[in-house]
Amino acid sequence: MRTMYFKNNPSILATSSIGGPKETTGALGKYIEIKGEDDTFGETTYEKAEKQMLYTVIKNSIQNAHKEIEDIDAIIAGDLLDQIISATFSARSFDAGYLGVYNACATFTEALTIGAALVDGGYLKSVVCGTSSHFSSAERQYRYPLELGCTRPPQAQWTVTGAGACVLGNGDGVKINCATVGKVVDFGVVDVNNMGAAMAPAAADTLYTHFIETGRTPDYYDAIISGDLGVLGSHVLIDLMWQKGFDISKVYHDCGAIVYKIKEKEYQGGSGAGCSSMVFCSYFYKQLCEKSLKRVLLMSTGALLSSLSAQQGESIPGIAHAVCIES
Amino acid sequence: MRTMYFKNNPSILATSSIGGPKETTGALGKYIEIKGEDDTFGETTYEKAEKQMLYTVIKNSIQNAHKEIEDIDAIIAGDLLDQIISATFSARSFDAGYLGVYNACATFTEALTIGAALVDGGYLKSVVCGTSSHFSSAERQYRYPLELGCTRPPQAQWTVTGAGACVLGNGDGVKINCATVGKVVDFGVVDVNNMGAAMAPAAADTLYTHFIETGRTPDYYDAIISGDLGVLGSHVLIDLMWQKGFDISKVYHDCGAIVYKIKEKEYQGGSGAGCSSMVFCSYFYKQLCEKSLKRVLLMSTGALLSSLSAQQGESIPGIAHAVCIES
Repeated sequence: MRTMYFKNNPSILATSSIGGPKETTGALGKYIEIKGEDDTFGETTYEKAEKQMLYTVIKNSIQNAHKEIEDIDAIIAGDLLDQIISATFSARSFDAGYLGVYNACATFTEALTIGAALVDGGYLKSVVCGTSSHFSSAERQYRYPLELGCTRPPQAQWTVTGAGACVLGNGDGVKINCATVGKVVDFGVVDVNNMGAAMAPAAADTLYTHFIETGRTPDYYDAIISGDLGVLGSHVLIDLMWQKGFDISKVYHDCGAIVYKIKEKEYQGGSGAGCSSMVFCSYFYKQLCEKSLKRVLLMSTGALLSSLSAQQGESIPGIAHAVCIES
Repeated sequence: MRTMYFKNNPSILATSSIGGPKETTGALGKYIEIKGEDDTFGETTYEKAEKQMLYTVIKNSIQNAHKEIEDIDAIIAGDLLDQIISATFSARSFDAGYLGVYNACATFTEALTIGAALVDGGYLKSVVCGTSSHFSSAERQYRYPLELGCTRPPQAQWTVTGAGACVLGNGDGVKINCATVGKVVDFGVVDVNNMGAAMAPAAADTLYTHFIETGRTPDYYDAIISGDLGVLGSHVLIDLMWQKGFDISKVYHDCGAIVYKIKEKEYQGGSGAGCSSMVFCSYFYKQLCEKSLKRVLLMSTGALLSSLSAQQGESIPGIAHAVCIES
């Protein structure tokens, strides 16, 4: 069984979100808590800018929960950069434990899953879960330096410059009810510009497993939210689930597909480890707090490649972890 | 509080270990289960060789526990390569959940901590925890291509070509009693060849926190085992603990310092995410099973740098997670 149940329903006590100019002027921009004037956040490199974003949302989420760092037992965080340096160097500034996690853009729900279990079981009292990504640091690590001016193909997505974090603990707040751990699924996609197609089969596997193991159906949820399949990948997921006997189309959303006013080079929408965390910690969390959504299944989706694995001819496996959150 | 207690004492049901020629002819070589004839393990690149090692110990640990993959709910694994591709591509071969973790060479006890909590709390029935490293894949990623023939300074360590994995579950076996989550600690070391000095302050912080939070003293343990501080780093840790009022010298061992017959370019001994997992899953696990050791504190130690963070002038923070294991 890959589904865990949290009997004590650990709470999301508070969240914080941050975005760059493109994100904060996008379709969901008004919901994002901290709006960057530019994409450097006062730093001299894009990597340091990404660290600064993650640090900021960790700090602010603790403040928003009316807590001090002494109340936080551990920070559970990750990002797309080699050796998850955004998470590490953010955690360095806090006097708390640190568990670094990495499942590419599925890292946010991986962190939520681990964090919810640690709080639910009474192992730790309170934890912060957070992830980040930055368009420019991701482009130069995974694809080409921006200075080269490479053109992007129409199946490409745009890595979100943003971060989100939330505080888990006991107390009032929206509740985490259960989580289904994802499996590595590889359908042999090798196009590093077509992440949606690479991740959709993993998302379908997790969603199907979740329905089978919990006995739930799509209508149990007000919203089923994937991380960053993008427009194309979202269609693939809906089709794959239809083939498996589940119609998710009425309640389905994708953070990547809705984050931008897609009109130029975003093509299929947003992606990145900060995509689902920024969108959930702003837009969807607000709706849960206002009870306009009561039961959501958040499923961040990750493409588990590295530059080196691609260079050595490997295909791109995907993964997705699903977390049920109820108001 | 950073210490978690596992009331149901989840068991290590079985382990598996693998090493390259240097490791299996080293001081602890006879304890290592699978002995590589060369360091390629039948693969065409060092990165694929590392994946093959990790895959092999995951598979063998499940066999050694007399289980099938259907009995395993999740694989919790990580390694040193960018985007932890050894762990990811190993997990791809198994029909089980996957949680990727990364705390550099402290990843093994990070995985054990998370795995023990998930099993102890009844969230998952059985998990496999494993890590790997490979001298040649690490050298070319973190330092220089081997073909350059760069000389190594005397404070350097030798990344272990090896892997270790263990199955956690309920049943007979040595028990995991508690764990103390590490904190990111940075004393400003910038020498990427002197990992021992970079990690020792983090190890001292975790050990001190463990003693204070549990009320235990060094004589509670038959062995306190750090991951890969090496000879130099081990002396630093003993001194730092002495300054904090604890004499650990009588029960202290370091996997890196004991893994090789140090006589040539290993200098300070072994390092790498596979160092503590390979040594624990062979040598120390055997002693726990034979009850020549009854209570050990295993504390893998990690240096949280990336090539890019070093290039951008960052210092090297360290982290260490401690896990109490009793026979």
